[in-house]
Amino acid sequence: MPLTSQNNESPIISELRQDIVTGDWVVIAKARAQKPEAFKSEASESVPVNPEECVFCHPEETGQKKDTLIYYREDGEWSLRVFPNKFPAFSRESNIVRHYEEGPYFVMEGVGYHEIIVTRDHNKTFGQLPVEAVTELVDSFRSRYLDLMNKKSVNYIMLIHNHGKRAGASQPHPHCQLFAIPVVSPGVQLELKGAEDYYHSHKQCVFCDILDWEGKENKRIVFENNSFMVIAPYASRAAFELWILPKRHEPYFERIAGKQEYHLGEALKHAMQKLYIGLKDPAINFYLHTSPCDGKEYNHYHWHLEILPRTSVWAGFEMATGIEVSTVIPEDAAQFLKKINST
Amino acid sequence: MPLTSQNNESPIISELRQDIVTGDWVVIAKARAQKPEAFKSEASESVPVNPEECVFCHPEETGQKKDTLIYYREDGEWSLRVFPNKFPAFSRESNIVRHYEEGPYFVMEGVGYHEIIVTRDHNKTFGQLPVEAVTELVDSFRSRYLDLMNKKSVNYIMLIHNHGKRAGASQPHPHCQLFAIPVVSPGVQLELKGAEDYYHSHKQCVFCDILDWEGKENKRIVFENNSFMVIAPYASRAAFELWILPKRHEPYFERIAGKQEYHLGEALKHAMQKLYIGLKDPAINFYLHTSPCDGKEYNHYHWHLEILPRTSVWAGFEMATGIEVSTVIPEDAAQFLKKINST
Repeated sequence: MPLTSQNNESPIISELRQDIVTGDWVVIAKARAQKPEAFKSEASESVPVNPEECVFCHPEETGQKKDTLIYYREDGEWSLRVFPNKFPAFSRESNIVRHYEEGPYFVMEGVGYHEIIVTRDHNKTFGQLPVEAVTELVDSFRSRYLDLMNKKSVNYIMLIHNHGKRAGASQPHPHCQLFAIPVVSPGVQLELKGAEDYYHSHKQCVFCDILDWEGKENKRIVFENNSFMVIAPYASRAAFELWILPKRHEPYFERIAGKQEYHLGEALKHAMQKLYIGLKDPAINFYLHTSPCDGKEYNHYHWHLEILPRTSVWAGFEMATGIEVSTVIPEDAAQFLKKINST
Repeated sequence: MPLTSQNNESPIISELRQDIVTGDWVVIAKARAQKPEAFKSEASESVPVNPEECVFCHPEETGQKKDTLIYYREDGEWSLRVFPNKFPAFSRESNIVRHYEEGPYFVMEGVGYHEIIVTRDHNKTFGQLPVEAVTELVDSFRSRYLDLMNKKSVNYIMLIHNHGKRAGASQPHPHCQLFAIPVVSPGVQLELKGAEDYYHSHKQCVFCDILDWEGKENKRIVFENNSFMVIAPYASRAAFELWILPKRHEPYFERIAGKQEYHLGEALKHAMQKLYIGLKDPAINFYLHTSPCDGKEYNHYHWHLEILPRTSVWAGFEMATGIEVSTVIPEDAAQFLKKINST
């Protein structure tokens, strides 16, 4: 039962909602809540670059290193390409990860792979591409994942998308980045542990329970097809946050196959298009959360994509507590985005 | 021994440094590292407001509620005041915290206290105030903390400062905010657990070990006095991050007493002034991390202040992994700030 103000009691100013995967709390500021229609999102602030000068439109002419993967159109032109980042955050192709202690501290060489995935059209965000092109993007994720997951120094593969200056993108051309690194990220570790704990107390996957409940309630579903459900999470960390969850339990993204790839392309395309239209091209991040490829078993985890529009600036409260304050109610955000006509 | 490139090996592109309190990792991007002098920090982007129209210059004229604490100057004018936030994120004065379950989810009424602490001068950031005024600020923290910690619904008290639009500040007038809430923040919980685990394996407080090592190495100290050390943490999450640590082991901020208050005022003033001068008035957050006031024992924790200049935008990599990428080496940042003449 949701919180409502009863007679003789003070009005509800806010709710503290718990993320049942991680145990984190978010504040839904009800008294300050805005109608999604009235929400003024700041634009992505993409740095405009002339396609003629864009390093991702003509990677071979601007000194990008050799491609690791290229997809072609029927006319023989490339449609998607993957290449190593010219300015990697991690060094490449080392089988040995050097560790050192420095007094009480611990440091490790930043060994790993850092690749860029680029779609062809300089001016079309993923939400503006046809489903087939987004499906090709999904296929490139899977293909690079399978290649990198067996490298010796790689224990985790992170796939991310930054769009707009406010989301940390330095290039306006639509692209994703792939990081294959020796450590499992703390954010994912928290989810792995939460899913494990939930399984032991409920004998069920926490994400499967979420999918069951969301299907029954039908209050936070933004889009669905046979394989995926797109929801505004109950404890959204930011206004208009979305999760894309595979409906069938599956800990490992890399096992995506057959029709599922097209269905993920479709879900991602519609989610991104709805945000693009509804929030007028907001700055946006999305990223994959999947089980580590460190050889251990993660049967109780459930891979998914998280889409985070950068609709607000994290202030001291969020930085200090890790508790986010959201002024759009997730149920309202879901209904608003659901109604937006995506094609 | 720090990582250095040896003959016949590929150059060090980055280091993964571990936060030994939380277990988190940060990436120090050595190959992309900048000299602190060359670091281009974006300005705080404070929204300019005419002092005549500032709601914090004349709180009584702009409908702010009753003060909870006022400090006066010798001439009878106020120097610092504390009042409830007109637009609180939490509702006030309720002894009962209502809980509900909603399907698999868990929600709690946002009960708590939300107060604003305002220093007098509209145009002077904390780094520009005399030590005495910053000490008064510290005294107001302690005073409000002691008053709120025994309220029934309060299990955690969060004290924060936001300066500049990029740090989430909506008012340019220098101020702090205090939140007294029923849940312990996830960020602090991670530190509490990390400190507890470290104690059990090392029979020593992790923060005390850090202080010992930093004192010996003398590479990351920015300022110190008899009671406090200001350091650039080894695994800094952002360029120019600073921690202010009490030198003597103490889990509870509220036990600060006597000369320590002046020493904290002095350490905070110098840290803020060095950042103000060195980074040309950057956007900034600082916040208190102290033991919860939920009646349990936290003897192995060690309270401290964390100062986080908002020198970079968190991109997808940071949002996805919780691993921050820093392009200024903490040792360089410390030497740069140490040399800045603060008075």
